[in-house]
Amino acid sequence: MKKEDCIFCRIVTGEIPADIVFRTERALAFRDINPQAPLHFVVIPKDHVETVSQLSNEFMLALGDIFRLTGILAGSFGVDQKGFRIVFNEGPDAGRTVPHAHFHFLAGRPLHWPPG
Amino acid sequence: MKKEDCIFCRIVTGEIPADIVFRTERALAFRDINPQAPLHFVVIPKDHVETVSQLSNEFMLALGDIFRLTGILAGSFGVDQKGFRIVFNEGPDAGRTVPHAHFHFLAGRPLHWPPG
Repeated sequence: MKKEDCIFCRIVTGEIPADIVFRTERALAFRDINPQAPLHFVVIPKDHVETVSQLSNEFMLALGDIFRLTGILAGSFGVDQKGFRIVFNEGPDAGRTVPHAHFHFLAGRPLHWPPG
Repeated sequence: MKKEDCIFCRIVTGEIPADIVFRTERALAFRDINPQAPLHFVVIPKDHVETVSQLSNEFMLALGDIFRLTGILAGSFGVDQKGFRIVFNEGPDAGRTVPHAHFHFLAGRPLHWPPG
């Protein structure tokens, strides 16, 4: 897929609007447009990466930013004690619809098991 | 919690048996004893870390190993095309039972939405 066709890359550039809650040098967190919990954010690396198997040094640094952001989200929205779930989907079995690596942050309600 | 009371730390030392499938310098993958999918592995940092907010450099390196391991698991078990889901739980709302940061790797069936 070309970068200019990727909806998440276009959110990074500001071409497509999103409800962005936090950004770092390498990552971005915005509200999911189809929330599955009272708090549901999508956290993405700014660079277009399709799979976690493409573990470049650049993506490793972005992963650091992504996990830092999840800590910031938990603290800022007051769920650091009650907790949260982070979900990464890859491929059709996991139902991933956007081919830009992204993490779901869900919180604000009991999250059940199995996770889907 | 003291490290010697942590069940995952005791799996790392070999004191408690587990069906270990891969290990790296900083991370370990073993089969979940209560699998929720045909393939269900737990991937942990070897060092005891309780929360992703404790983002030390050491844990960042372990995160790299953990995501490298998920790529290895996907390839080795032939689900790199069909896909997989990675789930991280923190706190009581997410139902986490072991206070040692760990990632669930699930694959081998369609994984539904919402993720719990």
